[in-house]
Amino acid sequence: MANISILSLSLSFLLVFHGCLALRPFQQQQQQNQCQIQRINALQPNERVQAEAGWTDFFDSSNQQFLCAGVEVIRHHIQPQGLLLPSYVNTPLMVYIVQGRGYQGTMLPGCPETFQSSQQLQEGSESFQDRHQKIRHFQQGDVVVFPAGAAHWMYNDGQEEVIAVALLDSTNSANQLDQFHRRFFLAGNPQQGQGQQQQQKGGKTWGRSQKGQSQEEGSGNIFRGFDLEMLAEVFNVDQETAEKLQSPDDTRGHIVKVERGLQVIRPPMKSEQQEQRGRGGAANGFEETICSAKMTHNIDDPSRADFYNPQAGWCNNLNSFKLPILQMLQLSAERGVLRRNAIVSPHWLMNAHSIIYVTKGDMGMQIVNHEGQTVFDDQIQEGQLVVVPQNFAVVQKAGEQGCQWIAFRTNDNAMINTLAGHTSALRAMPVNVIANAYQMTPEQAWSLKFNRKETVMFSPTSRSSGRSIAA
Amino acid sequence: MANISILSLSLSFLLVFHGCLALRPFQQQQQQNQCQIQRINALQPNERVQAEAGWTDFFDSSNQQFLCAGVEVIRHHIQPQGLLLPSYVNTPLMVYIVQGRGYQGTMLPGCPETFQSSQQLQEGSESFQDRHQKIRHFQQGDVVVFPAGAAHWMYNDGQEEVIAVALLDSTNSANQLDQFHRRFFLAGNPQQGQGQQQQQKGGKTWGRSQKGQSQEEGSGNIFRGFDLEMLAEVFNVDQETAEKLQSPDDTRGHIVKVERGLQVIRPPMKSEQQEQRGRGGAANGFEETICSAKMTHNIDDPSRADFYNPQAGWCNNLNSFKLPILQMLQLSAERGVLRRNAIVSPHWLMNAHSIIYVTKGDMGMQIVNHEGQTVFDDQIQEGQLVVVPQNFAVVQKAGEQGCQWIAFRTNDNAMINTLAGHTSALRAMPVNVIANAYQMTPEQAWSLKFNRKETVMFSPTSRSSGRSIAA
Amino acid sequence: MANISILSLSLSFLLVFHGCLALRPFQQQQQQNQCQIQRINALQPNERVQAEAGWTDFFDSSNQQFLCAGVEVIRHHIQPQGLLLPSYVNTPLMVYIVQGRGYQGTMLPGCPETFQSSQQLQEGSESFQDRHQKIRHFQQGDVVVFPAGAAHWMYNDGQEEVIAVALLDSTNSANQLDQFHRRFFLAGNPQQGQGQQQQQKGGKTWGRSQKGQSQEEGSGNIFRGFDLEMLAEVFNVDQETAEKLQSPDDTRGHIVKVERGLQVIRPPMKSEQQEQRGRGGAANGFEETICSAKMTHNIDDPSRADFYNPQAGWCNNLNSFKLPILQMLQLSAERGVLRRNAIVSPHWLMNAHSIIYVTKGDMGMQIVNHEGQTVFDDQIQEGQLVVVPQNFAVVQKAGEQGCQWIAFRTNDNAMINTLAGHTSALRAMPVNVIANAYQMTPEQAWSLKFNRKETVMFSPTSRSSGRSIAA
Repeated sequence: MANISILSLSLSFLLVFHGCLALRPFQQQQQQNQCQIQRINALQPNERVQAEAGWTDFFDSSNQQFLCAGVEVIRHHIQPQGLLLPSYVNTPLMVYIVQGRGYQGTMLPGCPETFQSSQQLQEGSESFQDRHQKIRHFQQGDVVVFPAGAAHWMYNDGQEEVIAVALLDSTNSANQLDQFHRRFFLAGNPQQGQGQQQQQKGGKTWGRSQKGQSQEEGSGNIFRGFDLEMLAEVFNVDQETAEKLQSPDDTRGHIVKVERGLQVIRPPMKSEQQEQRGRGGAANGFEETICSAKMTHNIDDPSRADFYNPQAGWCNNLNSFKLPILQMLQLSAERGVLRRNAIVSPHWLMNAHSIIYVTKGDMGMQIVNHEGQTVFDDQIQEGQLVVVPQNFAVVQKAGEQGCQWIAFRTNDNAMINTLAGHTSALRAMPVNVIANAYQMTPEQAWSLKFNRKETVMFSPTSRSSGRSIAA
Repeated sequence: MANISILSLSLSFLLVFHGCLALRPFQQQQQQNQCQIQRINALQPNERVQAEAGWTDFFDSSNQQFLCAGVEVIRHHIQPQGLLLPSYVNTPLMVYIVQGRGYQGTMLPGCPETFQSSQQLQEGSESFQDRHQKIRHFQQGDVVVFPAGAAHWMYNDGQEEVIAVALLDSTNSANQLDQFHRRFFLAGNPQQGQGQQQQQKGGKTWGRSQKGQSQEEGSGNIFRGFDLEMLAEVFNVDQETAEKLQSPDDTRGHIVKVERGLQVIRPPMKSEQQEQRGRGGAANGFEETICSAKMTHNIDDPSRADFYNPQAGWCNNLNSFKLPILQMLQLSAERGVLRRNAIVSPHWLMNAHSIIYVTKGDMGMQIVNHEGQTVFDDQIQEGQLVVVPQNFAVVQKAGEQGCQWIAFRTNDNAMINTLAGHTSALRAMPVNVIANAYQMTPEQAWSLKFNRKETVMFSPTSRSSGRSIAA
Repeated sequence: MANISILSLSLSFLLVFHGCLALRPFQQQQQQNQCQIQRINALQPNERVQAEAGWTDFFDSSNQQFLCAGVEVIRHHIQPQGLLLPSYVNTPLMVYIVQGRGYQGTMLPGCPETFQSSQQLQEGSESFQDRHQKIRHFQQGDVVVFPAGAAHWMYNDGQEEVIAVALLDSTNSANQLDQFHRRFFLAGNPQQGQGQQQQQKGGKTWGRSQKGQSQEEGSGNIFRGFDLEMLAEVFNVDQETAEKLQSPDDTRGHIVKVERGLQVIRPPMKSEQQEQRGRGGAANGFEETICSAKMTHNIDDPSRADFYNPQAGWCNNLNSFKLPILQMLQLSAERGVLRRNAIVSPHWLMNAHSIIYVTKGDMGMQIVNHEGQTVFDDQIQEGQLVVVPQNFAVVQKAGEQGCQWIAFRTNDNAMINTLAGHTSALRAMPVNVIANAYQMTPEQAWSLKFNRKETVMFSPTSRSSGRSIAA
């Protein structure tokens, strides 16, 4: 009996060994083919981390769409007088301000503290001056970027909630750590959230913890890992102040309320509405140094649209030609506004994934893979998101309310190829190639090339019966 | 008894679990070390996809040689009047025209339709003009490149079959999808092939399907994934024309016959033989825009050889200095012609893999890894292919018929280090370093450095007894 | 009974299959998250390969710290008159000369043999001239770099042992082979070492062998893989000389003794001490060609320090602005010298891993991850090494003897962000952001910003009781 067991054990061991080895090619395949997408779904956040003055929603970064694109997406909700505590992330960030206004500071090493004041600070009783690095305003429609590893904070100085959708490009070459993003907080005691849809134990951390996808219990800011005495020595402060750096008992979370509002040194805005446009002007000659690099660009202004069709809508691209720092980040963005029932020409992106987040209204989308299979054929609503992988073909049609979206793209100069309309791939082909490829008459081929005269965005009221090729 | 089974089962489960965990580092190792090549074989295509007017042969992309180099290779055979249907691929392509002539169109987004005509199209009865993007001729000896995601078609307008070997650089940074290439057809109904040597179910698709390496049954062009009504609307055409876009009943495959020959607008060729040379001239000032980028270069002309030795042979390199778009593609090529029994100096490539495809004759090759082990010592025949991994040492010797080959290289400026002859690594070392390294006399070291006076390619008729160091 | 076994076997097979599949996500996670570091240890070499005139120590490249940083580290000990045989590696190398002096030759393809002589070689009886590529001197404090795939040799022409620590950047884009480095020897018969701490079978090879991490028995130089007759033909030498190329019976290992000292053609050094400084001057106009590229830079000179604080210490950065070839290698280095009990400000690197090797003395280090957890809190001694992953926060404090180190960094322009002191992230923030983030008074916030006035390196004798905010 013992012998049998032993035999069976040893044999099973062999089998285990062999079985695992036999599986390897399959596993390898799976791991390398994260874009073998059979089904794309419109996603909404599935986890939330609450804080005193707002919260952050997380889209499920283990979803295949995100794994394929190599990115993650989060959404901050910062209440008026809310301060998102200073932190840095191991990936470049591209943030779109869906709503609200405020200002932010990005701490860049070696850059001077150019904002100086002689005014007395209001909270303090003593007289001293402050000086700090420059403060940047943001408002609805802005794209704000943060290089990997650059610490930053954000503050809502407006009357309404700031809603900010952030793309984290985890597979960017600037990230030399592993695949998922991690947020290093400089302050506070970032709390676990109450995930609406919890993986494993529930809760969410700022990045992956040691146990894989699960969360971690005692997450704190980076000062928590240093000795108190060391901190007191390096900052040359007393023990009490050093303890506050570690904030062990801070229960406010990552977005805190600034009771009487945040007082910082900042120039007056010209006109709160026009300021962004003024900043969108020409390079200032110092553009090339990181300290004076422009980090914000408003793309919500139809008067500066890249495509404009009064019957169909408009869209505005932000690439490294407009915002040079994007060359370093290898990211770009598109702001699209589509009127009711208008259509974006079927198209594919040559060199980028596209992460489309709907900010208003809804639209129907069809996404097609290389085998001609429809991997998505559904509506996408406000607050939802869809990843369109590189080279996959996609068509978009606004719903009854029209649709507005922001699309993040994983290339600093994403190139679009349309299939229909002016400047499309079919337009570029000779009529006879089309006729032979599709087994149709030259007249039909001609109508495919020239019937739709618009570019990129098509009005819904086009000549729906104008099928003749006669102009 | 039952107990025994249970015991044995649970123990085996533990073992399985443990076994798998224990294997992990090994598996990990294996996955990361796809260049741990013990044995290289000369490869020939193992699958074929037939079509109406030709076929495409596939080399096995799961072969370790290809996994190591991160590339795939296919070979098109296009019969006279055959049209390779328009498609795009998620990887850069570098194509060498082994035989035949024709022309091709690459549809680049935003580029104007610069080829215009006022002539009447012949097939149609009505009078209308066509206009389309530029047409590029190709002929035997040309290297033609296509950026990732750029749609293109090819047509054989000659009298003999076009044979085109294509390298697909799957691990190029331009490919943001997973490791294997996928071809997105804009037209037709690409068919399953009858693999000569079938994996799993047999047949071959244009890229990986959802089930790993197996093929997929209902593969169609990308229009198949869109609604018919949507297509009719976006193209502003009737239902019948829209249906033809989807081509559900097209049985011609990916290479179709153009019955009376393809009529397109194209300038007359100066002289079919000289045209390529004319195009090989200086940059035209618009070289930097993608619309006017040169995409074709003939490397079959011994009068422009980079190395030339009348007794041994010649070779011609194509790098980004000659064809600037290669900087974007990160690929280069070498055309080599070796006389009977002539030898290419033992050498290694510093910064690239080399994929060598023999177009005529045969040669013996020895490939050596870092441990001094011979991983290949065999003949490679016409139509066969061998991958020489980066840094592996290789020597080539033509057979009795001489040998011609095309080598694709995974760097836009591949650097070769020879071991023997003029400009070799041994030449660069002091005689005394050689003498001490190899424990030989200075005379022997001197002979190693200076006896072989040729560069790169050595004639077979060298002074085979001239062993003295005296010049 | 047989049935039981069979049942148990078949069930275990199922379990194996299932078990392995179930493990996949975990394995995948693990493989992608090699920077999920819970515990960092100070490392010292765990394997040694002995040779006639020295030895090479290996740090365990399968340690998670190295896997996370994607690098490997080795240390050569070359005795006087020792010659490290010519070899090339599939990764870029950055070498720091901890001790000693000598010269080296790097064989670059296409570069001319610019060192010529008409003197008679001393060992030989005949009269002939030698010529070879240029020889470069090195001495203590030099950083010497070798591009991937460039063959090189090193020779100790001094009176004391040369100790050279080398970083091999295995995940550099210049390496197209798999993850671990491999050394291709051009000469000798590199021997197995007697690993002090042996994995599997014990012994060490120059790179990974076919059987995973284990070593390989018959390792030889690359000429071993070629036919003797082929070698005789290509070099046009007799069989005996060709056999010596293969060196099958050479038992001297990879560092050989040059009995009467190595005679090569080289210019006299100006002054052995000043020569390096002279070479550190302006670019010579040919700087851009690889043949004239500067490959060596001395960073051991406090008079050219980038940070200098007489009470605390100094440090010297070597980046691509100083040594342009580093742009190609994507590496940089920092030489740091800290006085007893002095402190390097807590900081993080934005865009690079840091591999810190202590050359003298010792220091305490604390390293903190994104969750505020201390992953390292220990002393690091002379000859030990620690990897600080990108973005991890770190503080360093010298021991009683002070401390000197070399830090290799995986970016050609690594950017440091300090947390305390002048130019720190806290300095860049408004006082009110600090006060609100840390729930402290403006006075405390002010003291955090301004109490420590030094930059990067802090003296130990700072006003340890100066906690008031009054200047």
